[in-house]
Amino acid sequence: MYEYLISQVKFNEQGLVPAVAQCCESQEILMMAWMNEESLRQTLLNGEVCYWSRSRQSLWRKGETSGHTQSLKELRLDCDGDTILLRVSQKGSACHTGARTCFFRLYDEGGDIFVSES
Amino acid sequence: MYEYLISQVKFNEQGLVPAVAQCCESQEILMMAWMNEESLRQTLLNGEVCYWSRSRQSLWRKGETSGHTQSLKELRLDCDGDTILLRVSQKGSACHTGARTCFFRLYDEGGDIFVSES
Repeated sequence: MYEYLISQVKFNEQGLVPAVAQCCESQEILMMAWMNEESLRQTLLNGEVCYWSRSRQSLWRKGETSGHTQSLKELRLDCDGDTILLRVSQKGSACHTGARTCFFRLYDEGGDIFVSES
Repeated sequence: MYEYLISQVKFNEQGLVPAVAQCCESQEILMMAWMNEESLRQTLLNGEVCYWSRSRQSLWRKGETSGHTQSLKELRLDCDGDTILLRVSQKGSACHTGARTCFFRLYDEGGDIFVSES
């Protein structure tokens, strides 16, 4: 039953597609990571987000060790099918640093970057 | 004055970094596109978002022909510096189809995808 969706996704030459995770409650952008076809299938099957780790070259079941899982609430595809939007319910922090979102580094017009929870 | 920021961005082997645009008013995710160093500099310099078009292999000043520009309100970098979050004020529609956001294709648990403004 995922075949139609999968047929609409344009995986790149490495078989990957970028996936942006957004908190469905706060609307914060939590992180961006990559999916291959298998991780997309796993996500749809289990309702918990699974990415593809490019560094480890393996499936990355988000929160498997930390417990900071992402429950999938909604999945959207962009107009040309080359980016996925995951609307999720995030348990704990999305970022490995312990921050709620990975985008905690805010660029300041003065030229600095400072740490700021959004 | 952008040197510190640029030094923190991890461009990929093609010299590109993914940039996610979020509407700073509605919090919608509008689109995902790519930037190279020059488009990032142009964005910071002009305060209007400029991407790198991979298909045309040229700078892509968002809205230059359509008028649907994106004014940069805030720029964030993720924990490992390989994704940029642009918080923008979007004039008109972000998507070339005329939709407000590129992510108008909603996947339904029944296996279909239907068009839905968020």
